[in-house]
Amino acid sequence: MQFSTFSLTAAALCTAGLAQAASPSISAIQQASHASLREWIDVLAIPNDSNVAADIQKNADWFKAALEKRGFTAKLLPNQSKPMVLATLPPVLGATKTVLFYAHMDGQAVTPAEWQQESPWKPVLKERQADGAWKEIALDQLYSAQPNPEWRVFGRSSSDDKAPIIMLMAALDALKQQGLPPATNIKILLDSEEEKGSPTLGQVIQEHLADLQADALLVLDGPMHASNRPTLVFGNRGIAQATLTVYGPSQDLHSGHYGNYAANPAFTMAQLLTSMKAPDGRVLVKGYYDGITLDAQTQAVMKAVPDDEAALRKRLGIAQAEKVGSNYQEAMQYPSLNVRGLQIADVGAKARTVVPAQAIAELDLRTVPETPPERLQQLLKAHIEAQGFQLVDGEPTAAQRAQYPKLASLKMGGVSASSTAVRTDLGAPIGNWLRQGMQQAWGETPVQIRMMGGTVPTGAAVQALKVPFVIVPMVNADNNQHSKNENMRLGNYFDGIKSLTYILTQPWQ
Amino acid sequence: MQFSTFSLTAAALCTAGLAQAASPSISAIQQASHASLREWIDVLAIPNDSNVAADIQKNADWFKAALEKRGFTAKLLPNQSKPMVLATLPPVLGATKTVLFYAHMDGQAVTPAEWQQESPWKPVLKERQADGAWKEIALDQLYSAQPNPEWRVFGRSSSDDKAPIIMLMAALDALKQQGLPPATNIKILLDSEEEKGSPTLGQVIQEHLADLQADALLVLDGPMHASNRPTLVFGNRGIAQATLTVYGPSQDLHSGHYGNYAANPAFTMAQLLTSMKAPDGRVLVKGYYDGITLDAQTQAVMKAVPDDEAALRKRLGIAQAEKVGSNYQEAMQYPSLNVRGLQIADVGAKARTVVPAQAIAELDLRTVPETPPERLQQLLKAHIEAQGFQLVDGEPTAAQRAQYPKLASLKMGGVSASSTAVRTDLGAPIGNWLRQGMQQAWGETPVQIRMMGGTVPTGAAVQALKVPFVIVPMVNADNNQHSKNENMRLGNYFDGIKSLTYILTQPWQ
Repeated sequence: MQFSTFSLTAAALCTAGLAQAASPSISAIQQASHASLREWIDVLAIPNDSNVAADIQKNADWFKAALEKRGFTAKLLPNQSKPMVLATLPPVLGATKTVLFYAHMDGQAVTPAEWQQESPWKPVLKERQADGAWKEIALDQLYSAQPNPEWRVFGRSSSDDKAPIIMLMAALDALKQQGLPPATNIKILLDSEEEKGSPTLGQVIQEHLADLQADALLVLDGPMHASNRPTLVFGNRGIAQATLTVYGPSQDLHSGHYGNYAANPAFTMAQLLTSMKAPDGRVLVKGYYDGITLDAQTQAVMKAVPDDEAALRKRLGIAQAEKVGSNYQEAMQYPSLNVRGLQIADVGAKARTVVPAQAIAELDLRTVPETPPERLQQLLKAHIEAQGFQLVDGEPTAAQRAQYPKLASLKMGGVSASSTAVRTDLGAPIGNWLRQGMQQAWGETPVQIRMMGGTVPTGAAVQALKVPFVIVPMVNADNNQHSKNENMRLGNYFDGIKSLTYILTQPWQ
Repeated sequence: MQFSTFSLTAAALCTAGLAQAASPSISAIQQASHASLREWIDVLAIPNDSNVAADIQKNADWFKAALEKRGFTAKLLPNQSKPMVLATLPPVLGATKTVLFYAHMDGQAVTPAEWQQESPWKPVLKERQADGAWKEIALDQLYSAQPNPEWRVFGRSSSDDKAPIIMLMAALDALKQQGLPPATNIKILLDSEEEKGSPTLGQVIQEHLADLQADALLVLDGPMHASNRPTLVFGNRGIAQATLTVYGPSQDLHSGHYGNYAANPAFTMAQLLTSMKAPDGRVLVKGYYDGITLDAQTQAVMKAVPDDEAALRKRLGIAQAEKVGSNYQEAMQYPSLNVRGLQIADVGAKARTVVPAQAIAELDLRTVPETPPERLQQLLKAHIEAQGFQLVDGEPTAAQRAQYPKLASLKMGGVSASSTAVRTDLGAPIGNWLRQGMQQAWGETPVQIRMMGGTVPTGAAVQALKVPFVIVPMVNADNNQHSKNENMRLGNYFDGIKSLTYILTQPWQ
């Protein structure tokens, strides 16, 4: 652990004796950034529905050509009919490290009628009005000398995740213009099914492991911290699922004739769930948090994240947060136990006066590296049994019903590599290197997210490549990712190119 | 309380010095019973969907004519377009009491395709096969000299509730044949919307209160005890409903980004429900059972009910019963608190990885006379508040969300007269009279149900008429009431006529 090198202040960094990077010129960055805008708009016009192989093929061809134009050796990695793209720059003289950039070409499916523009595949430029609404303005203005950083380009994948690929190419263009080589060797892998959870990413990587060898994996995806300050993300939680069914009578019963006689599985389920979680939100399942320790320095990093929790709680509509961590960032360091759905008979107009036959709860368990999903699932199972339940496989038999007063089934969801929790140590060399690059670019320590709460398919790549990774998010947090009216703020686009330019030129020994 | 008169043994009854009833002749009963079968089959062929006014009108006309043929003065009581029937026999010389019989003409809607016969409105005779299946046999056999008591007539309302009306007419025919007058004056009220919960019964009774004046109300509806022994039912639970909503975040949240931070209303609801009911099934809401006492003699009556609880638990698919009462009958003496449905986001294929915005529970509260629904609803409200919840009217405002960590709404269902709990004291004169009639008919004390768990619309009539009532069920418990393949066992049909004949001739001073 090299905590001295990821301390929070610029002062600390300045005393760390950094290697001097060749400073990219601001005007070169600006010039390359502006030049890249037309390519960005061009590629946004190519539909990229993750489900449509023909879409993916067109995007793969486009990106392959764009990368070859920049001196990369590029090839398509067959992935059934949805190829990925692997591109490699010729080795940089004197560079001892190789960095693999990961991003994805595919996008979520769209419902065009929901979008406030002609088509999600026909990107438009918009300006925010005084009333907060977005109004389309001429696309030509994007190419003017000084486009307003508050303008946004709207279109599917304008932010998630085509922009980062174009931004990386622009950063490389900026270096080329100045005759500056990158400080490391560069490879790029463009995923074609990220929006489907990257089901084949691990396998494709395995098949091309030699070509993909690298010292670090930089994931260019996801939104920056809501403060829009430069952000590095060192990990993400994983996810496992389970379906918990508590059995009552063998069929729905008349609640008049059997209410007070046949136990209602709603109450049995309620008692079981209550045994699993304290009112303050902490999981009571024995051993659930075992292995997680947050020392003072780690806590300080999390405390330094400029979350505005009062604003967050207001936005979420909650008066207080759960007490799993002492702040939002800390809460994400622990596995969760979430009921994502629960159904017992019917409500509303369809409700009938019955003692229901069963209660079904869908659970998701967000995992962290210290708490592998298989272990949490086993702990959960043991907990349920400790509450006096007999676990059965599906609908109990008449004999089981006659024998056991409390019957339940717990069906575990499968755990894939792409839903695994991964985390890079905050003090690892890759972190030092990126913090230094960001510091050079912005004169401030970036926001450091030790662990984001959500699950991204990073795990598949990390596990296959066995390299340290960091996520470098560059798009605005309010980009409507996955939804209608996805957009990218121009300020973030230009800032991201600057960040990448500095990272590319940051020496890493 | 006159407990000596409802003690459980025939010996006790014999020592009570009963007035001697004029004994009806068995052969006259048999003759009238057989003669009534064609009328029964005739009236079952008239559709009687509770929702269809034209159906109701035809049935009302038929029954009015059938009763007039027997010397009743009959009239239709307008009830929008679904008339009820009121029929009165000329006063009986020397009779000091008047008995009002209640039954209903209407039936539940049908789905003909589900029935194992040509039409629910075309009654058929069936015989059970060795494998348990029912096989149609020639209807003519019904009219043979000795129809098998195990045969059944299948058709909508074959049991619920046209049979009891025909059976009452047959009992009167049996008396007439012997020149025996009834021991009391007789009135009959035929409801037309019982299957819709008798929404207007109370009002129709109010409009004809003078014509309906009586000393006792006998409700001819519902199934006999499962043992098929002569049964008297002294009361039924009422029902009130409520919808409980527990609020989480203002909208469904990403369970990765907010799991461990925004409290999940599934757990909040679970904790609330757990606070309401002990694991043994007893309601923990303060005061919920107040006012209910079951003295030793009452307990003895309930214990004497020949319930086969081991068989019942097996049929329900439960290993053990809740501990609200020490047996099934006792459990029905208490109000229940039942979750009839609960919904939180979605389960199965529609489940998403969210922290859900809300949890909705539909409750039904079965009430007893000691626990009026309004009081239980108030106790429930107080209980929820005592658990730290702020109760709101519907979706909370942003200000309420910011102020209160625990938010819920409790929407009370209306309570109608027809869903009110009613009970006649086991020791009331009406009980003595009916027990004596049944004893005369069968030589044994009838099964006495102090309180049936389900809710029937008796309350509307009882409250409007302000008379003691008893339910005299006569149809087989396994009659598929309200469902497809409704049927009536011939043995029950004949036995019921016998019971009614003895009740009609039982002196009541």
